[in-house]
Amino acid sequence: MTAQQHSASRGGRDDAVHGRLLADDTRHVLHPWADLSTLGKQDPLVITGAEGVEVVDSRGRRYLDAIGGMWCVTVGYGREEIVEAMAAQARAMPYFTPFGDVANEPAIELAAQLAALAPGDLNRVHFTTGGSTAVESAVRVAHLYHAALGRPGRRHVLSRTDAYHGSTYLAASLSGKQADRVRFRYEDTWVHHLESPGHDADDTSVSAAERLAGLMAGMEAAIDRIGAENIACFVAEPVLASGGVLVPPPGYHQATRELCGRHDILYISDEVVTGFGRLGHFFASQDRFGIVPDMITTAKGLTSGYQPLGAVLISDRIAGTLAETADPDKPVFSNGFTYSGHPVACAAALANIELMRREDICGHVRDVGPYFMDRLRELRSSPIVAAVRGDHLMACVECRVPGESGPTPRNMALAHRVDTYCEAGGLLVRPYENLCIMSPPLVVGAAEIDRIAGVMADALARAEADLRSGTAAAG
Amino acid sequence: MTAQQHSASRGGRDDAVHGRLLADDTRHVLHPWADLSTLGKQDPLVITGAEGVEVVDSRGRRYLDAIGGMWCVTVGYGREEIVEAMAAQARAMPYFTPFGDVANEPAIELAAQLAALAPGDLNRVHFTTGGSTAVESAVRVAHLYHAALGRPGRRHVLSRTDAYHGSTYLAASLSGKQADRVRFRYEDTWVHHLESPGHDADDTSVSAAERLAGLMAGMEAAIDRIGAENIACFVAEPVLASGGVLVPPPGYHQATRELCGRHDILYISDEVVTGFGRLGHFFASQDRFGIVPDMITTAKGLTSGYQPLGAVLISDRIAGTLAETADPDKPVFSNGFTYSGHPVACAAALANIELMRREDICGHVRDVGPYFMDRLRELRSSPIVAAVRGDHLMACVECRVPGESGPTPRNMALAHRVDTYCEAGGLLVRPYENLCIMSPPLVVGAAEIDRIAGVMADALARAEADLRSGTAAAG
Repeated sequence: MTAQQHSASRGGRDDAVHGRLLADDTRHVLHPWADLSTLGKQDPLVITGAEGVEVVDSRGRRYLDAIGGMWCVTVGYGREEIVEAMAAQARAMPYFTPFGDVANEPAIELAAQLAALAPGDLNRVHFTTGGSTAVESAVRVAHLYHAALGRPGRRHVLSRTDAYHGSTYLAASLSGKQADRVRFRYEDTWVHHLESPGHDADDTSVSAAERLAGLMAGMEAAIDRIGAENIACFVAEPVLASGGVLVPPPGYHQATRELCGRHDILYISDEVVTGFGRLGHFFASQDRFGIVPDMITTAKGLTSGYQPLGAVLISDRIAGTLAETADPDKPVFSNGFTYSGHPVACAAALANIELMRREDICGHVRDVGPYFMDRLRELRSSPIVAAVRGDHLMACVECRVPGESGPTPRNMALAHRVDTYCEAGGLLVRPYENLCIMSPPLVVGAAEIDRIAGVMADALARAEADLRSGTAAAG
Repeated sequence: MTAQQHSASRGGRDDAVHGRLLADDTRHVLHPWADLSTLGKQDPLVITGAEGVEVVDSRGRRYLDAIGGMWCVTVGYGREEIVEAMAAQARAMPYFTPFGDVANEPAIELAAQLAALAPGDLNRVHFTTGGSTAVESAVRVAHLYHAALGRPGRRHVLSRTDAYHGSTYLAASLSGKQADRVRFRYEDTWVHHLESPGHDADDTSVSAAERLAGLMAGMEAAIDRIGAENIACFVAEPVLASGGVLVPPPGYHQATRELCGRHDILYISDEVVTGFGRLGHFFASQDRFGIVPDMITTAKGLTSGYQPLGAVLISDRIAGTLAETADPDKPVFSNGFTYSGHPVACAAALANIELMRREDICGHVRDVGPYFMDRLRELRSSPIVAAVRGDHLMACVECRVPGESGPTPRNMALAHRVDTYCEAGGLLVRPYENLCIMSPPLVVGAAEIDRIAGVMADALARAEADLRSGTAAAG
């Protein structure tokens, strides 16, 4: 047994510890996105170990992690270089305020690196603690920018149905997944959701050009209705991630960018998921979709998930305007967090970028990404697969009871059954409505892709057999 | 030279590195709370090393850190136990999703420990990434709680002038510091600010009882005006921190708690600053001020700043209601972040709590806190000190040109001068308006307290001499 195997195998806990973990979780934790109907009765999967592309639970069961932690563990688990960089920074200087005119070394170095990686003139970096706070900050910058130019009426924000931008009050309001809208409150006087822009290339009933024309007509109509003079910004994931891995039709990114530019609506590209290699580039906006936004938000893959960190990359044009228009009486940019640009998190990001460069992770994704999609697309031969879609290493398999479409209770139950068979087969995918979502670590190899496709095919076959025998999709 | 001294002395960088750091910060960073009028021309203080209660900048200059990082570095710098705990967790399992029914070991253990430390029935923990997201989540829980009980009209939130609760859109809207209100947008239809509750015990013109009566009459009038049936919650720091270390009059906490309870307005105690020992207890709500809130928010001292982490502690009553009233069609609690309960951050918090217990840090604060306040109160003999206020290890010295009161331009310039002399004397305090705010690491000893008081006295004397000679307070 190698040291690495030994390390991963240590995830198993004895019965007493395992039992205590389950009891304490049940008694004391309110998980993000918990099922409230089971609160206080939860039976959690406790992940205790990880190595490479695998994780281990508290019973010692091993899984291939096909969700990359949650869109974020890109260079894989057990990366000693990142651990050492974090420990060295924590030892030397674990924290000091980043407010005002005080700085720390890793945050400065990371800002310079991000500026070099970002497209166009996006050279100014404002750090945050994750994706939600990055999106919050970007929208606040857009409000400040327009107000500083004497047009405070530009407060409205365009988002899209099926978008996911986080779960603070504003970020949750920008998100457009109906399934997530519960009895919380949402801002609805100045946040607007355009049509969900996904396009199924396999659907021959509508061409990509027709789909694009329809989407753009809808966006133009919304701008006319709200009034361009009232709109601050447009927030858009290049590929909608949690909403169901929805890929817009070709030309959509350029057309929306052009439309926003024409109306001085700031374009915020939310690359929390698509950035840092998932589509084969550090940022997808320009290298994959040919646009230079006004701001880019990033998080997740920025540290490979090893540390909480987010950032907004801001154009020199916007930053210059903020400086030139600074209110003489109140020049303070009153935004930012205690843990913005935390030195340990920035040190992790720097080590992560170095690893990604040394191992040409982006090049590897451009190599294996098409193979991953090809292997998954073979699953379309299953009668319970409605669609397979994605781009490079973000993908989803949409399940359906034959003849039934969308996130119906029967389809969701069927997808849940597929997910359960995957887990039993040692594969973790992310169930969402009637989808099985996948975003494996970017270091995944062809053999592991084969394993993902194989377990998924087997799970689909078993779920289909259940359906035939009348035991599946009972809810 | 000991190993520790050697480690701290390494903060100095050679001229080339120092120059590059300054150039890159100037070119690429938009700091939290930046002065926009100097954006692109900033001349940052770069903190590169730290040990015990001292930090070192990139020129090798050492400072006694009288602000504890920013209210958060409680057990001091260079704590190897925390570094090792972080590294061990990052090595074993750096990240996996905490969403839904998936858990990690350190988050479970930390939740159990927080429940044991929290007052009353606050046994349910929802992790976040810092203070802003903790406050956001607490208010969202309040909204959900009332909506689930069939009263969605309870959406209004009571906060206070001079409060600080963070800088997301909602948290910034809850904050009530006028100096921070710039051209950003703020929610103002359902967020209300009551009168700032500070009371100056040295001010004999109004008794504590009169002050309390006035504050409560104002709060009752606001509830009458808005309608209790429209109010979700009251959010309150036990001692207002960034707003100027404002201590409410005795009895205020119990009176506001009672008033909220009578109207079923949930009481959210924002202990991001006051928690984790700063007032001599893990939580101040009950042990210092005699109240059991419905929710407590915590961050900062939770990890001693070594890692970004926040949490909301929720009462069993609220959690039980959320479970019992779960929407059968949509039982999901759609709140929480990728990095909620990050395993490395939770491991840091566990190590921090262990250190705090082993060294009885809370007991130490109860010992030295009164001495700290006594030494600072001696500074009132300076003619340019308007007031000294605080509680245990949070304090501020308010500066004034004789005869002038409040944050006037001349008073602010004077406080800035005091701050500059402190920095030259090897002491970092936090300038805010005309205040010098202090929140040293909790491990600070009597000799270091003497050093803080001594440097501060010298800085005040020099600023006063400048004032007499006509060179100070020129803005």
